This record gives sequence, C-alpha cells and structure tokens, in this order.
Amino acid sequence: MSAETPLPPTPDKHSAAGLSRRGLLGLAGAGVAGLGLGVGGDRAYIAAASAAAPSPATAVYPFYQEHQAGIVTPAQDRLHFAAFDVSAGTTRAGLIELLRDWTVAAAAMAAGRDIGDFGAVSGPYDAPPEDTGEALGLPASGLTITFGFGPSLFENADGVDRFGIRARRPEELTELPHFPGDMLEPARSGGDLCIQACADDPQVAVHAIRNLSRIAFGRAVIRWSQLGFGRTSSTSTSQATPRNLFGFKDGTSNIKAEEPDAADGHVWVRDGPAWLAGGSYLVARRIRMTIETWDRTILREQEAVFGRNKGEGAPLSGGTEFTTPDFALTGRADLPLIGAAAHVRLAHPSRNEGIRMLRRGYNFVDGTDALGRLDAGLFFISFQSNPEHYTAVQLNLARHDALNEYIRHVGSALFAVPPGTAHGSYVGSALFA
Amino acid sequence: MSAETPLPPTPDKHSAAGLSRRGLLGLAGAGVAGLGLGVGGDRAYIAAASAAAPSPATAVYPFYQEHQAGIVTPAQDRLHFAAFDVSAGTTRAGLIELLRDWTVAAAAMAAGRDIGDFGAVSGPYDAPPEDTGEALGLPASGLTITFGFGPSLFENADGVDRFGIRARRPEELTELPHFPGDMLEPARSGGDLCIQACADDPQVAVHAIRNLSRIAFGRAVIRWSQLGFGRTSSTSTSQATPRNLFGFKDGTSNIKAEEPDAADGHVWVRDGPAWLAGGSYLVARRIRMTIETWDRTILREQEAVFGRNKGEGAPLSGGTEFTTPDFALTGRADLPLIGAAAHVRLAHPSRNEGIRMLRRGYNFVDGTDALGRLDAGLFFISFQSNPEHYTAVQLNLARHDALNEYIRHVGSALFAVPPGTAHGSYVGSALFA
Repeated sequence: MSAETPLPPTPDKHSAAGLSRRGLLGLAGAGVAGLGLGVGGDRAYIAAASAAAPSPATAVYPFYQEHQAGIVTPAQDRLHFAAFDVSAGTTRAGLIELLRDWTVAAAAMAAGRDIGDFGAVSGPYDAPPEDTGEALGLPASGLTITFGFGPSLFENADGVDRFGIRARRPEELTELPHFPGDMLEPARSGGDLCIQACADDPQVAVHAIRNLSRIAFGRAVIRWSQLGFGRTSSTSTSQATPRNLFGFKDGTSNIKAEEPDAADGHVWVRDGPAWLAGGSYLVARRIRMTIETWDRTILREQEAVFGRNKGEGAPLSGGTEFTTPDFALTGRADLPLIGAAAHVRLAHPSRNEGIRMLRRGYNFVDGTDALGRLDAGLFFISFQSNPEHYTAVQLNLARHDALNEYIRHVGSALFAVPPGTAHGSYVGSALFA
Repeated sequence: MSAETPLPPTPDKHSAAGLSRRGLLGLAGAGVAGLGLGVGGDRAYIAAASAAAPSPATAVYPFYQEHQAGIVTPAQDRLHFAAFDVSAGTTRAGLIELLRDWTVAAAAMAAGRDIGDFGAVSGPYDAPPEDTGEALGLPASGLTITFGFGPSLFENADGVDRFGIRARRPEELTELPHFPGDMLEPARSGGDLCIQACADDPQVAVHAIRNLSRIAFGRAVIRWSQLGFGRTSSTSTSQATPRNLFGFKDGTSNIKAEEPDAADGHVWVRDGPAWLAGGSYLVARRIRMTIETWDRTILREQEAVFGRNKGEGAPLSGGTEFTTPDFALTGRADLPLIGAAAHVRLAHPSRNEGIRMLRRGYNFVDGTDALGRLDAGLFFISFQSNPEHYTAVQLNLARHDALNEYIRHVGSALFAVPPGTAHGSYVGSALFA
C-alpha cells in the first residue's frame, strides 16, 4: 500500500475483546486467527471483528480512516482535551515532524499499544522509557485521538506567518466573535493546535494526552487542558441521552452516527480548501454552571428554562424524549407551552435556519472555588461544517436563552480539524503539501 | 427494630443487576420476589443477593453497617472527596441535625435512590427539587459515602469548643506534624468534616458530594474538594493492582478485604474512646507528581526509585509482583538490589515496626498549570487504627525516600472516622450521646 493511498471508508467500530496492550503485542506477533490484522505504513494495527456487540472497554477504533475518529464515533465516557501553543523557534519542518511523530504515536495508542519502538518497559535501561507506562495492561478502551489547527497556527497575534500556511487559512477559521455575556479567560482559550482524546477509561485518555505532550517537548507546550468525566451527548442511536449537571437531558436531537447524510451535510467541510475536505471545525467552550444557584431554583422554572420536563426529557409541548417539540402549542392564557426564551426552542434547528451541529460535550468538576462552590459545568464541544453555524446559534442563545442566568462561558477555542490520515502519511499533511 | 440497635456484621457486597434509580423505586413499591428488601428507620434499602458476581455498575453497598462502607469495600474506580468547614453560627444541635440529614441522604444514595421524599422530579413544581437529578437513571454504581471528623471540629483555631465535644477528642486526633519537604497549601488542607464518595461512575460520586453539600447549605461549606479518576490501590484480592501516574504498581501489599484479621489489627480503632470503637483514622494527602521530570528519567533510575521493575511490578530482588522483597540480597559490588532509599524498602511493614495501612488513593489530573505542566499526581488516602502509624511511616519516607525528588505533598488532612451507623441513628451519634 503506497504511503498516500486513502483508505476506503471502513466501519468505525471494532472489538478486540479483553485484549490488553500486552495481549495485542503478543497477538500481533503470533498472527492469531479470528483477528483481522492490517499493516499500514510502519505501524501494525488490529481491526478485530467480533460477533458480540463491542463493550466499551474492548472497543478499538483504527486511527487511519477517511475522517478522523472521535467525531462521529459513538461518544466515549471520558475526555482529556488539550490545546497547545507551538514553541518559539519551531520551524515549518519542525512542525511537520511533530505532526508525523504525533500521528505514529496516536495510531499506536488507538490500537491499545505502547508508543515507540520499545514502549514502556522493553527499552534500554539507560534511557527514559518511550512510553510513560500508566496504561500498561489496560485495553484500548475505545480511545480516539483527534487533532485540530487553530487560527493562530496560520498567523500569530503579531501577524507573523510562522509556518508558511497563512495563504491556506480558510476565511472561516478566525477567532469566534465576542458573544453577549462571554467572560472568557485567556488561559482557558485559544491555542495553535488541539488534541481531543476520548476513551472509556480516563487513565487511557490521560495517558494519551500526556504522551503526546511529552513528544512535543521543545516544539509545543500545553496552553490549557480539560478533563471531562462524563459524556453529555449521545452520537449513536444505541446510546441513551445522558444528563448534564443541571440534571437534564440536552442535545436529544444530536446528529447520530446512524445518519451519514446528516454528517455529510452538517459536519464535514464541503466548500473549504482542498486540504480540509473531509474535515470539520471543532468549537470548544468551557461553560461554568452556577450549580448552587440552579439548585435553589424551583422545578417549574428549571423545566421552563430548558423547555423540557426533567424526568423524561420530553418537550413541554408533550410526548416523550424524542418527540419533536411543538413550539406553537399554547396553554393557559394562550402562552406557548415552550416559552420564547426556552433553551430547546432557541437551540432547535427549526429556529436556526436548519443548522445542526454534532455535539460531543462532557461534564466536568474541577474541585471547588475559593467560595466553596463547585467549579463545575459543561465542556461543550461541537463539530460543524462551518464555524459560522455555531456563531449563528450561539448569538441567538447568548441574546435570549433563559439558561444564561445560570451559566457563564469562561473558555473558548476554534480549530479546523483536518480529514483522516492515510497509512504512511501524517495528520494534516495536505495543508503542507 | 429499635432506633439504636446495632446491625450484625453483614456481607459488604450485594448486587442489584441492572437496577436504575427508577427501577429501585418501582421494585421497592412492588416488593418483587428475589430481592431481599429490608426496611430500617425511615428508609428502605435493597440488599439484593445475586448468583452472578456483581459487576461494578450494579454493586450496591448498604449504608447501615457495623463499620462505615468505603474502607474495606473493594476500591471503586472513581472518587469525589470533600472537606467541609462548619459555618459560623451553627450550634451543636445544628451540627447534629446536619449529620442526621446527611445520614438519611447517604443511605438513600447508596441504595441507588434519589434523596428526599420526592426526589428529583416528583416533587411540587413550586419548590426546588430535593435531588439535583443528574444521577437519575443511573444504577447505584457501588457508591459508598464515608464521613470523618477533623481535629478542628473539637476545638477550632481560636481554641473554642464550639460543639461541646472538646473533652471527647482523642489525643491522636491532632494536626499531622510538618514533614520534611511538605509544601502544604492551606486551601487544600484541613477541614472540620470530610466526606469520601467512591463509585464506579464518576457522575454518581459527584452527585453524592453535590447533594450532601447542598443539604449542608447554611450549616457547613466545602473547604476543598478533589476528584480522583482512577483508583491506585486494590483492597481486594479479586482486584488487579492498578498503576500510578509514574507507570508503576505501588501498594501491592495493601491490606485486603479478605484479611479481616489484618483490618482488625491495623484499620479499626482499638484503644480509643468508646464513640470511635469500630471506627478508623483517615489521612488524606494531595501529592503532586512532577510528571515531566519523571518522564525524562531513565528506566534504571525509575526502577531503582521504586525498588520494583516497571513491567511486572516485581521487587528488584526477584520474583513476581507478590513476592516478598528480599532487602538483604546484594548484587554487583555487594550493593543491595533494592537500594537503601527505594520506596518499597522504606514503606515496607518490615522496616516500619510492622505498621500496615489500608491505602485507598486515586490518580488525579486537574488540568495544566501556568507553565503547561500537568497538575497531576496521587490523592493519597489511608485508613489506620492510629494516625501515629501514618506519621511514623511518612517521617521515614519524607527523610529518605528517593521518590521525594519527583513528588511534592501540597495538601494534608486528618479525620477520625466514626463506626458504622445503626438504622434510625445517624453517623457519629455516639460522639454526641
């Protein structure tokens, strides 16, 4: 297989039941029957087909795909997200080398393997181990690693074209506008590069970010990072809608993996530059929830804010969780059952010129602030074919959403997510071709 | 059953396969056959015996036990730990009322139920819901809630006996001494009260701390809290030893639930005041790991620091993970294979007058610091019959342990953990009797 041959779209989900990193290495050597073993570029990966439905711990998502994994992949339970700044002095060649190194390591970890030629424990005793080792013995746990490029990679704050790619910046890839109510902290915003690591075991997600950060040493440094302990979205019809920290189901009408047409239309970039074809735009927003205030709010108000009931997640116009809301339906005094400022109304595609985003956010709790309040909320992540889709919806929400009384946007970033990587190539290679 | 009848020791682990909060409520009403349904005090709990081995998500540990749950309970995967300060103006009666309210809520949540008479969604619309709701539909997930009392509860920093219990303070319950190298932050240390919530689903652990904090409103406020994403200890022979963020197995010789004699001798208070009989002492230490420095250290040094090999976790004197280290065995140049400053040597019971502790720590990552380094490490928790056991071992480690070059103790707290609670009573009632 030549280095740049694109892969055909492959089924995204595979299972290697009960295989640990050690087990995978052993099996890769032995060529055990029943496992589909593919070798591409300089890396082996295992795409094991199992008759049983894959359980989270044993899911393995190949890194080399048409689209990057971690977007339409059924949302895993845990997240570690990191934004990086490229270090001063790193050249274009140095950046490309970093992306090559990241690609090789990401493919190995996605397959449940240590990184490097020797991994965590097999290397020479007089060198630091290539892999930090805390995921030794753990299965791949559905790990996906998704890379993105921020606007500042193309042109930094001083207007410098550090890597000779300014002319390739899509017009849409610019800082998001200031939305009403934004209280953004620079230390939680922006970044030249991003890596989203999702897995069903947090140790596996943390291991991925840590090792990729280590690989970047001297070339890029983490600007900010965020752990998410629980997914708030389902991106597959096989997943139940989880609850956010306000106790509500939100994002019921999320784009699902089972709707390839919806992903084609709303997630993957269509009209952008060639290097971004099959890619997407990732918006990350750290949304602090004022938990304590919310918890003192009466149930009626809580349900009015979301426009859904709390128990089932059904719209206040009636039905069940997946019933389409009827925004025209009125109740007492001819008032709409779903209020004008209700979150479900303002966020709904029918109120946003049909705009849909793939949401992939996570609940977070980062301990307690100086006043004893939980530093908690939603780390919002969405993928869309054009960041202006997010901007349009968020402007609508920022102006009118009743939820604004209980939330604050404190972090923000936008990244262009290049398409998937072919064996032997590296993530984003078309940008530098 | 009278209010103060102590329960006989009951098996600690039960299973209610697949039961959600909703399911439990429904079953409790219907009295379904096959589930052992006990009613005690004003609360029902389900102790369902299942033929199948309990899976983490479906484990249910009754709250009302001889000892508090969450100590010898097989360590769950996730932690939310909170230290509280009792608010100015809270009286002795107010404190007792808080402990009563906490007890009732903890018992309900441990059984996988909403708190309160109405829970999250069944209450009056014109009142805030009694339960915040983000755990609706989730199983009990092995939740245990463990309460402790800090030295400042007995006498505050101004020497005031706020709750009339100063005379009942055990001599051993005092601030831990300053250990060499300690860099403690007051905002991460101490506390009048603590709650350790462990579960196999982080949303369930977070839900518990949040709702107990909410119940405390106006009476006590969180001083600091800490999430742990992965257990670092096994407290049952059925559990594999997990790895810490240095990639090593540590605590291999931890006290296990299957050693009741060891727990009797090392964990449960024997010679203390009557109110603490059957209780323990909890030491919490936030140990920051300088991950980036460690990751640049050669494998030989890493293994020498721990005195174990990285792959298997076997002592450097040979054997496998569970082989007893031979500290006398020498190698080249007659040097001991396990060095004088190796962690396993200094922490070993044979080098600490036979002292053993039950360790129950968790890996944490709290994002990234201002220099782009992971704010990560070990949230160490140990239970012992006397806090002087911890002090003796930690003095030994703080003075000599090779690991000190790579870690910093930044938070510290000590709590007396009262015994388990009888139906109808409240946690720590004997202290106020």
